[in-house]
Amino acid sequence: MNYKLTIQYDGTDFHGWQMQRELRTVQSELTRALSLIEGREVVLHGSGRTDAGVHAEGQVASIMLQRPITPEKLRAAINGNIFADVRILSVDAASDDFHARYSAKEKTYIYRIVNGHVISPFWNRYACQEARPLDLELMKTAAALFIGTHDWTAFSSAQSDAETRVRTITQLRVTERHDARAPGRMIEITIAAEGFLRYMVRLIAGTLMAVGRDEMSHDLVRQAIESGDRSLVAATAPACGLTLLSVRYD
Amino acid sequence: MNYKLTIQYDGTDFHGWQMQRELRTVQSELTRALSLIEGREVVLHGSGRTDAGVHAEGQVASIMLQRPITPEKLRAAINGNIFADVRILSVDAASDDFHARYSAKEKTYIYRIVNGHVISPFWNRYACQEARPLDLELMKTAAALFIGTHDWTAFSSAQSDAETRVRTITQLRVTERHDARAPGRMIEITIAAEGFLRYMVRLIAGTLMAVGRDEMSHDLVRQAIESGDRSLVAATAPACGLTLLSVRYD
Repeated sequence: MNYKLTIQYDGTDFHGWQMQRELRTVQSELTRALSLIEGREVVLHGSGRTDAGVHAEGQVASIMLQRPITPEKLRAAINGNIFADVRILSVDAASDDFHARYSAKEKTYIYRIVNGHVISPFWNRYACQEARPLDLELMKTAAALFIGTHDWTAFSSAQSDAETRVRTITQLRVTERHDARAPGRMIEITIAAEGFLRYMVRLIAGTLMAVGRDEMSHDLVRQAIESGDRSLVAATAPACGLTLLSVRYD
Repeated sequence: MNYKLTIQYDGTDFHGWQMQRELRTVQSELTRALSLIEGREVVLHGSGRTDAGVHAEGQVASIMLQRPITPEKLRAAINGNIFADVRILSVDAASDDFHARYSAKEKTYIYRIVNGHVISPFWNRYACQEARPLDLELMKTAAALFIGTHDWTAFSSAQSDAETRVRTITQLRVTERHDARAPGRMIEITIAAEGFLRYMVRLIAGTLMAVGRDEMSHDLVRQAIESGDRSLVAATAPACGLTLLSVRYD
């Protein structure tokens, strides 16, 4: 039977999603629990990697098991065998051809910024702090420039082994909200695409923050997108501010 | 100069507020930083203790310093010398007779419960999990029984050294809300009083949860309040669900 798992994790104490020898990763933690349940080594497919320190509110993975078990029992069995910083929210029976990575149609990430002199202890693991003032209107108009299909070379890691750097960004919103547990201003960058390159969201978030500090013009953003010139792009925003929100399937 | 500090902390890794030899507490962490700034041993007064594992979104403390320093600089100096799980949100100049404990008029606590089979990694440090169904209406009507002035012996630690166990509860609300980062149902118990006895909020929260599970009747709650009989009162709810929200001064 094939299963779809919806997963949350606090990425702080993980070396990312992807299995790595002798390092604690989400995939290895879940694979260990699932192999125990199945009684043999199993292979868990994630919708994609998340880097060290990056969180997930709705990561998706798929797993084919021989041992018959109801989705409800599978969820309880996994959660009973892993630490509390990763949780299986739900398990659904999936058709045999469902694959968390290849069946994914769109992913949505959120990048959170606490804009102020103090970051709440309740947010310091999950948001990045920017003490300098950010101009929300400048960020919003710059965000619109990213919508569409482009070669995102300027906004990706040079080490990426992707075959093509062309991706389509379908949504990029900059919003402000108040959180009851934190004083001050929380800015959220929500971005959706059919797929992302390595560091792409964090490079876009870092760019939008530079725009918000009025250190980077809209013209320069446009030029970076069009030229693919990495030297035009500001810093990669820190991992802790990034969260994989959801993965869409048909 | 006398200062009023407003403080947040994630209580998970602290042995409570109160200074204790060789244990990490919020008061000792802040006292260490303040003594460094002042260049001599200082005494920091909190509005009251919080137990090990209990959090604060708005704890208040007062401190008298001889060294002249602006509130803004004092805040930055303290935050620069402590770990990220405790933060000074604001520092205000206070009149000489201001004392965080003796000037306090009212405190408000919140107790958070995730009611469901899975607790999000983003809430497991800050809420208590109850997998069994909770009847919100039963909890709401029981909450009303606690409003007013009573001897709270049944809802306090036997070891308390308080002179009197009479306190006035001015507010007790049970509400439900949705949190974007967590699936399912979050129930919040908000309680305000001029003062609390040790374990009082956690005993009231534990009682309301027993009422919500339909294991304790409203009559029994009334009887416990009136008789002061500790044997009638259910379990103390876990510390991690409890947060000191705010302290009111005139």
